[in-house]
Amino acid sequence: MRDDRGLIREPKIVAIGGGTGLSTMLRGLKEYSSNITAVVTVADDGGGSGVLREELGILPPGDIRNCILALAETEPILEQLLQYRFQDGSLKGQSFGNLFLAAMNGISSGFEEAIKRVSDVLAVTGRVLPVTLDNVTLCAELMDGYTICGESKIGKHNDFHKGKIMRVYLKPHHAKPLQDVLYAIENADVILLGPGSLYTSIIPNLLVDGIGSAIKESPALKVYVCNVMTQQCETENYSVYDHIAALESHSLRGIVDHCIVNKADIPAQIRKRYLEEGADRVRIDYDRISDVGIKLLEGDILSFERNLVRHDPRKLAAMIIEFVTEKLAGRSQVTIK
Amino acid sequence: MRDDRGLIREPKIVAIGGGTGLSTMLRGLKEYSSNITAVVTVADDGGGSGVLREELGILPPGDIRNCILALAETEPILEQLLQYRFQDGSLKGQSFGNLFLAAMNGISSGFEEAIKRVSDVLAVTGRVLPVTLDNVTLCAELMDGYTICGESKIGKHNDFHKGKIMRVYLKPHHAKPLQDVLYAIENADVILLGPGSLYTSIIPNLLVDGIGSAIKESPALKVYVCNVMTQQCETENYSVYDHIAALESHSLRGIVDHCIVNKADIPAQIRKRYLEEGADRVRIDYDRISDVGIKLLEGDILSFERNLVRHDPRKLAAMIIEFVTEKLAGRSQVTIK
Repeated sequence: MRDDRGLIREPKIVAIGGGTGLSTMLRGLKEYSSNITAVVTVADDGGGSGVLREELGILPPGDIRNCILALAETEPILEQLLQYRFQDGSLKGQSFGNLFLAAMNGISSGFEEAIKRVSDVLAVTGRVLPVTLDNVTLCAELMDGYTICGESKIGKHNDFHKGKIMRVYLKPHHAKPLQDVLYAIENADVILLGPGSLYTSIIPNLLVDGIGSAIKESPALKVYVCNVMTQQCETENYSVYDHIAALESHSLRGIVDHCIVNKADIPAQIRKRYLEEGADRVRIDYDRISDVGIKLLEGDILSFERNLVRHDPRKLAAMIIEFVTEKLAGRSQVTIK
Repeated sequence: MRDDRGLIREPKIVAIGGGTGLSTMLRGLKEYSSNITAVVTVADDGGGSGVLREELGILPPGDIRNCILALAETEPILEQLLQYRFQDGSLKGQSFGNLFLAAMNGISSGFEEAIKRVSDVLAVTGRVLPVTLDNVTLCAELMDGYTICGESKIGKHNDFHKGKIMRVYLKPHHAKPLQDVLYAIENADVILLGPGSLYTSIIPNLLVDGIGSAIKESPALKVYVCNVMTQQCETENYSVYDHIAALESHSLRGIVDHCIVNKADIPAQIRKRYLEEGADRVRIDYDRISDVGIKLLEGDILSFERNLVRHDPRKLAAMIIEFVTEKLAGRSQVTIK
C-alpha cells in the first residue's frame, strides 16, 4: 500500500521496556519495519551496567546495548565481540559492548549522542532512546511497608526480605522524559509495552514524567505484550489482568487497548522446572480483561530454547505486524517491507 | 614501473619497533605502500597494557593498537574512540582500543588471530604482527651489575637506581619468533629499525630467536632510523654510532647498512628544555659510522608539535621512499602509489 504521496510506508513502531524481552522482540520486528523506536528504561543498577554507572557516572548501558544489537546489521563477529564478557581481573563479567557505549560517551557531548553514534557505527535499523537522561533509582514498596531501592535488589528481594510488591517509584520522584521519546509516542502507529519484567523493565518507563499521558493521548494502537510466565519476586501468582492492573495503577487507566497473550502449550517438563522455582504460567482471566475493555490477541508465540520459555522473535513479530496491518488498513496506509 | 607480469608493485616494507615512534612513521609510509608489515615488541608491561597483561594474561596490546590505528582507514570518530582513555574508576587510564583487542582475543583462537580480526574490522593497510607470541619480560643489566626487570621500570630506572644500561635480555632467554615475521623479513624490499626507544622498543625485537639472523640474511635494504634526541635512562650522551653499536651487540654485526639521521636545526628554546631533562641531540660521529661501513642518509625529518622533537611522518616517509625507490630501481621494479 502507499501513502497519499504515493510512497511506501512501514508501520511506525514504538517499543517500550528493557531487559532481554524487549531486545528479543526487536530482532523479529526489524524484519518488517525500519521505523522502530525502542524506548529503554535506565534504572538498571546491577552487573556490569551497575559498575559503570557507579564508577563512571554514566547511565546504565546494558539494556541499551542489547536493543542496539537487536536492531543492528552487524557482522556476526562484531555482535559476538560486543556481547563478549571479560573472564578475569577487574573487568570480569563486564561486557565489551557496555565499554563501547561508555567510551563513546567519553568522547561525546552526552549519553544521547553516544547512543546515536554507536547506532550509526553499527548500522542500526530505527533507533534506541533512553526514556530519560536523569540518573534515577527504582524503589519498591512491599505490601508490609518495607522499601527496597535499586532495580537489581528488587528483582531478587526474596533473598533478603520476602514479600509482594505493592508499588514501585523513582527516586527522585520527577524525571524528565527525552523529548524524542514523547515525539515518537505521539507519532506512532503502534506502541508496544513489553515483553519484559513488569516492575523492573516496563513500569519504570511509565514513571517518567509525561510518558503515561503521552501514551494514553497518542492515536496509536497500544498493545501490552504480556509475559508468559510469572516471575518470582515480581509477579508471583499474577494473572494477565493483574499485570494490566499494575500497568494502569502506575500510569493511567486505559493506557493499553490490546493485550497479546500466548495460547501455546508449555511442555510439562519445562513447566515443572518453573514451578520448582516459584514461577508458573500467567493465567488468562478473560472476564476481567474484557470488563476493562481490553481486547485479547492470542497466538502461539513461544520458543523453548535451552528449556526456557521465551517469546519467539519471528512468531511474535509476525503476530504484531499482522494485527497492526489489519487495524491500520482503515486508518492510514501501511506497507510491510 | 611494472613487474615481470606487467603488474604494478609497491615496495615491501618491514618496520620493526614499538612505542609511538614506529606508529608515527607508519602513518607516513601508508601513503606510499600498502605492502607494509609492522613488527612490534611485546615486552611492554606498563600502563593499561600492563594491567591487561597481568589481569587477563594476554600480550600487551598498546603498541599493537597504535600501529593498527596508524595503518587503519578509520573514520576520525572511530580513531578517537579507540584512543579514548577512561577517566574514572577501575578503568581509569585504560584505553578503549586495548579493551577492543582484549575482547577480540577473548573470542578468537589466539592473539595473532585477534590482531588480524581487529585489523580487518578497521580496514588496515598492510598488517601488524607481534614479534613473538611468547610471554616475555625485558630485563636490563646496568654497568654496575644491577639488574632491572620489566620494560616500564627500565624506561624510568633513574627514579630508583641510576646507571647506564650495559645490555638488555629477555626472560625466558629463548622466545619463538612468529613465522610470518621471518617470512616478511626474508621477502622485504626494505627493513626499517625504529624510530623508537633503543633498548625498550627496538632491541627487544632483535632478542627474539632468529630475528637478527633473518634480518642480516635478507636481501632487503636495512635502514636504522636513529632517534634525534637522547633519552634519559636509556641513551644519555649516546652518539649515532653508540646507537648502532648497541643494535649490533644485541644481534649481529652488519645488521643494518644505512642509517637515517636528522640534519635540521632544533630551536634553541626546545633544546634547552630537553637539556633540563637530561636529554640532548644525538651527535653524528661521521668517522666511526663510516668506519663500520654504514651509509648515512641525512635530511630534515622533524616536526616540533607541542614543543616536542618528533619525526614528521610525511617528511620521514618521503625520504625513505625516495631512497628505496632509487636503490631498488636497479634490483627490481618498484612503483610508488
